[in-house]
Amino acid sequence: MNDLFLRACRNEAVERPPVWIMRQAGRYLAEYRAIRERGDFLTLCRTPELAAEVTLQPIRLIGVDAAILFADILLPLDAMGAGLYFVKGEGPRFERPVRSEQEAKSLAEIDPERDLGYVMETVRRVSKELAGSVPLIGFAGTPWTLATYLVEGGPSKNYANLLAWSYSDPDGLRRVLSFVAKGSARYLSAQVAAGAQALQLFDSWGGILSAERWREIALPSLLQVIENIEGDVPLIFYVNGGSHLLPVLRDLPVQVLSVDWRIPLDQARAIVGPDKVLQGNLDPGALLGSKEEIVSRTKAMLAAGAGGGHIANLGHGILPMTNPDSARLFVDTVKNSATG
Amino acid sequence: MNDLFLRACRNEAVERPPVWIMRQAGRYLAEYRAIRERGDFLTLCRTPELAAEVTLQPIRLIGVDAAILFADILLPLDAMGAGLYFVKGEGPRFERPVRSEQEAKSLAEIDPERDLGYVMETVRRVSKELAGSVPLIGFAGTPWTLATYLVEGGPSKNYANLLAWSYSDPDGLRRVLSFVAKGSARYLSAQVAAGAQALQLFDSWGGILSAERWREIALPSLLQVIENIEGDVPLIFYVNGGSHLLPVLRDLPVQVLSVDWRIPLDQARAIVGPDKVLQGNLDPGALLGSKEEIVSRTKAMLAAGAGGGHIANLGHGILPMTNPDSARLFVDTVKNSATG
Repeated sequence: MNDLFLRACRNEAVERPPVWIMRQAGRYLAEYRAIRERGDFLTLCRTPELAAEVTLQPIRLIGVDAAILFADILLPLDAMGAGLYFVKGEGPRFERPVRSEQEAKSLAEIDPERDLGYVMETVRRVSKELAGSVPLIGFAGTPWTLATYLVEGGPSKNYANLLAWSYSDPDGLRRVLSFVAKGSARYLSAQVAAGAQALQLFDSWGGILSAERWREIALPSLLQVIENIEGDVPLIFYVNGGSHLLPVLRDLPVQVLSVDWRIPLDQARAIVGPDKVLQGNLDPGALLGSKEEIVSRTKAMLAAGAGGGHIANLGHGILPMTNPDSARLFVDTVKNSATG
Repeated sequence: MNDLFLRACRNEAVERPPVWIMRQAGRYLAEYRAIRERGDFLTLCRTPELAAEVTLQPIRLIGVDAAILFADILLPLDAMGAGLYFVKGEGPRFERPVRSEQEAKSLAEIDPERDLGYVMETVRRVSKELAGSVPLIGFAGTPWTLATYLVEGGPSKNYANLLAWSYSDPDGLRRVLSFVAKGSARYLSAQVAAGAQALQLFDSWGGILSAERWREIALPSLLQVIENIEGDVPLIFYVNGGSHLLPVLRDLPVQVLSVDWRIPLDQARAIVGPDKVLQGNLDPGALLGSKEEIVSRTKAMLAAGAGGGHIANLGHGILPMTNPDSARLFVDTVKNSATG
């Protein structure tokens, strides 16, 4: 059994950094695209047999040290009644965006096994298939990041509606984020009950807030999620574009901070201190370079991370145009490293 | 004559910080929307009479201390032959994206007065109308930021094509950025010759690079622009999402660094040192809050900037949904401050 990833999450001494890749189950794999041809993205998420299959593909094909559930961060908001759909080439949309505390009253409390049972079934299937060969990571978006989609109704350039709400009625927004947090904590707890052995919280858009405002607006509901997760599993917090938030993240009660490629790991560690395990952070674009570049940049990343607990990963999701050979080379370069 | 802005750019002692607003000529103004109804965005840019009129509106309506040319950063790339057009609700597109040094051979060298004469005519009209009442700022995008649009063919989520190029053929990319820089320097020099009294360089997407890669890939062509501008006017460098770049920007040969809202001005100043004037950096979202909030947050921003040269502004463009009264309140709050 390969429990290297879990030991690294707990900041135990490990023989080498474990490695996995954000969006490792995805379009860069021909085997994934073949399954996607059989249905749209949401159908894939909602069909446990297929979702389990694509979750397992990168274990077999790329050799990563952990599996991550194939799902979408917006599924719980759909289960709450916001009406998720996807527009080809443009990404997710909500039929019923929520832009006030009043409008949020239309959101329903979720029972994960009832409303998102297909996710739990995927977790159970993957756990059974993996049979302990590598750990399975579950995940959710943070309430703030979920709110960017729920309030704007989809991806946004400037988050104008959410910002307007955050300045005009911060208390109301915090109450709605708290409502989302309650559902998220249940959802994550159910993933753990179904077999997830670690959880990653994606704050993809936390970085649009200053540190002061992130602490005021985004942190309370995030803490609520963290405090209400049932089950003793390591927590990973990922933030994109959040170098300026690191001084605050130092105190976040999670074992692992996953950082993007914008700041070297040694600089990040100098800010967050020695107690946090760092995850990341090769630029996903680096996998589009030559083999020599991939090896040298991966080694440089490992050297920058060597000053403390480190889980190798990219700094963001792998790009769809990446050659799977390059993903394998990244993984093998980490595997062949020895931290001695 | 109100030359407060120019004196502040030169880091001279001033009676109060000058104030202007990025995108101050824009959709939040009913008077702008009225003119936009007479033609699309590109027609407005290319009609000096109208472009001059919208450039002047915020001077009259909001009371800012500087005018900024109404134009688009992508106009020079269109003049080079890339074929700019706008898709309603989605932003700019290029008919002929450039993804290799070979493809870049189709780009033509520009003669600003011949190919972008309408911009220079706008500058001349505005200069004449202003008659020295406030200074006029000209601008251009940095070669790196222009390349994000030129290579991707429009706005992008992950800049995959540009990143691929930057890793697979960095020397070729640098040569193309240098070609763009040559045109940009001519374009900016022509703006100065026509009457622009300061220049702002927009690096809207510099922040997607780590500091090391920004220095390797984006900086050489930026320096080429700066070194080849003819005319002695203050230079302002704006970067969005670039808190992690500040240690490198310390040495950039510009008078003013314009920063976004993610990091307080006193923290930015601690990194870039006392020689740089800072411009910014109220969160544009703050203008969507109550009057009391706008005043208190503007004062807090002024206090954070008071440790050195400071030009008050937002940290990014004003949001289209902003009430003009709120923009005026922001400006008046700065004007009523005394740095004594």
